[in-house]
Amino acid sequence: MTQNYAGLQSVIWRGDKLDLLDQRLLPEEIVYLPLTTSEDVWEAIRHLKVRGAPAIGIAAAYGVVLGSRDALAAGEWLADVKKHAEYLATSRPTAVNLFWALDRMKAAADRFAGEGLSVDGLKEALTNEAIAIQSEDEATNRLIGEHALGLFKDDMGVLTHCNAGGLATAKYGTALAPFYLAKEQGMNIRVFADETRPVLQGARLTAFELQQAGVDVTLICDNMAGMVMSKGWVDAVIVGTDRVAANGDVANKIGTYSVAVLAKAHGIPFYVACPLSTFDLSTPTGAEIPIEERNAEEITEGFGKRTAPQGVKVFNPAFDVTPHEYVTAIITEKGIVTAPFEENLRKLFQD
Amino acid sequence: MTQNYAGLQSVIWRGDKLDLLDQRLLPEEIVYLPLTTSEDVWEAIRHLKVRGAPAIGIAAAYGVVLGSRDALAAGEWLADVKKHAEYLATSRPTAVNLFWALDRMKAAADRFAGEGLSVDGLKEALTNEAIAIQSEDEATNRLIGEHALGLFKDDMGVLTHCNAGGLATAKYGTALAPFYLAKEQGMNIRVFADETRPVLQGARLTAFELQQAGVDVTLICDNMAGMVMSKGWVDAVIVGTDRVAANGDVANKIGTYSVAVLAKAHGIPFYVACPLSTFDLSTPTGAEIPIEERNAEEITEGFGKRTAPQGVKVFNPAFDVTPHEYVTAIITEKGIVTAPFEENLRKLFQD
Repeated sequence: MTQNYAGLQSVIWRGDKLDLLDQRLLPEEIVYLPLTTSEDVWEAIRHLKVRGAPAIGIAAAYGVVLGSRDALAAGEWLADVKKHAEYLATSRPTAVNLFWALDRMKAAADRFAGEGLSVDGLKEALTNEAIAIQSEDEATNRLIGEHALGLFKDDMGVLTHCNAGGLATAKYGTALAPFYLAKEQGMNIRVFADETRPVLQGARLTAFELQQAGVDVTLICDNMAGMVMSKGWVDAVIVGTDRVAANGDVANKIGTYSVAVLAKAHGIPFYVACPLSTFDLSTPTGAEIPIEERNAEEITEGFGKRTAPQGVKVFNPAFDVTPHEYVTAIITEKGIVTAPFEENLRKLFQD
Repeated sequence: MTQNYAGLQSVIWRGDKLDLLDQRLLPEEIVYLPLTTSEDVWEAIRHLKVRGAPAIGIAAAYGVVLGSRDALAAGEWLADVKKHAEYLATSRPTAVNLFWALDRMKAAADRFAGEGLSVDGLKEALTNEAIAIQSEDEATNRLIGEHALGLFKDDMGVLTHCNAGGLATAKYGTALAPFYLAKEQGMNIRVFADETRPVLQGARLTAFELQQAGVDVTLICDNMAGMVMSKGWVDAVIVGTDRVAANGDVANKIGTYSVAVLAKAHGIPFYVACPLSTFDLSTPTGAEIPIEERNAEEITEGFGKRTAPQGVKVFNPAFDVTPHEYVTAIITEKGIVTAPFEENLRKLFQD
């Protein structure tokens, strides 16, 4: 059962199939699902077998490769790429990396189609594009980690919510990247991981991957964050995000907004870590980000056992929006962005 | 399975035994445990079969009756009362009603012993004292509910945390009492119930008893409270408490402090409902209230299934303290107390 985190990747391309770590079974079971069709990938994204905005984007990119690999001619291939990209975009509504990766795959396909390649050449070029998305994500996360680590000091306490770790990305994660780099450098950071109801990504994934890596991690329930802050144990909060709007509003796992409000009330900086692919400058503010609502059973029978009365009314939003005034800084591979976010994000993307 | 709430009492005295509703099994199973010794009662309190500050006090009072019923002479009887009261006080450290009820039972025993009653007369008088504690609690809660309801209006949204309902008391509850009275009067209040990790008293008990009574209740995860408030759906928060210090600081189920901070950030009043027996004027501030830490398994295997990695470090405080500056008002059977709490509480107890 014990595995070295370094060997545990959420998405592994095998040439003829995509091996996908079923994150719903962690930490008790480590099972890779062999996905061979875009339908397999759609289903895996929809049902949270793969989660984490960057990992979803990577899986979707390979889904396009799988969906278009039986085409016999260039025209058919391009149509298949478009069709499966559009289909995969319907798997989940909130994470912008999904759409970003699919748009990149479609644009690459158009470009390759214009180069007069054979259908086999087209397939190979598109496969390489998906591989590039994955390897660039790893490099990006390492840069994010380096920038974030510059904000932390030895022996600091840092609270995180949900899982924006290696399992959510190609490697290192976004919000968890500084903890891995701190470990490499012999720095000690005390991490508090919110368990993150209802799906418990913090308990099942963040606590798991940090523990595997030897990082000092303490698991708490979401409702303990305020108490832990009031004790002076938390010097900073860092989270990932599924989409950042043009004004710096941040959509992330449900509960992030509560953590941001609590951090502000305690004078604790609230950092968001994400690659540039998570920004959606075409969405003006957080109010325009669609928030996925998931089924009641995630809350009422999330553990294979009913924990609420039959038929009770439930509200189960998967995400919430943290207005930019609660965000101290957004940490990207290109550096750290602070307020005024609208202006500074525009500049970042102009460079 | 379906039962009318009105018939579902957490503590029922049967003359020769205490029938105790096993609250750990709700809402799936309705099981009454026959308790015949003070050890049974101690164990039931310790392991949360009975919970809720007033219900714990009531159960403990009957525990003293059970512990002293075999005495053959008045002197032996009084010693047994003291011994079992002291033993029962070790079952849980935070709820002051437990100590209040046990002190009342000891004082009553001393008084009866001074009246020269026979040993059978002593036992009967002490049994009546426990019965009085229970019936006074019901009357008290009805008064608390009436005072609280004066703060609410038709169609308001009110958020509550944990379970300070009928199951936590003799009847009506404290924080939930106004919802039952509103229902009686045809008023509609939309209640949001935090599920309240790790033991899920909100999901298992509050949502259950309000649903049974036909109150409009929506279950949310604890980390959704901020989002629900930001949407403007919450006009007030009301919670119970396990102990109020002399300065108005409030100890209650873990997560209450986070809710109070969120309420303040959204300009939402934060009410605490409790009987006078919950005040501990001998504790100057919340800092002196002992906070029980419970075992890690409540978080890591709370649903009969492991949801966190083996061996992970866990912090599991059962309660937190909400400083009085977050409390808009404390609602008691004698009326509503507002700041300055220290002064106004002193006055309340002088009257």
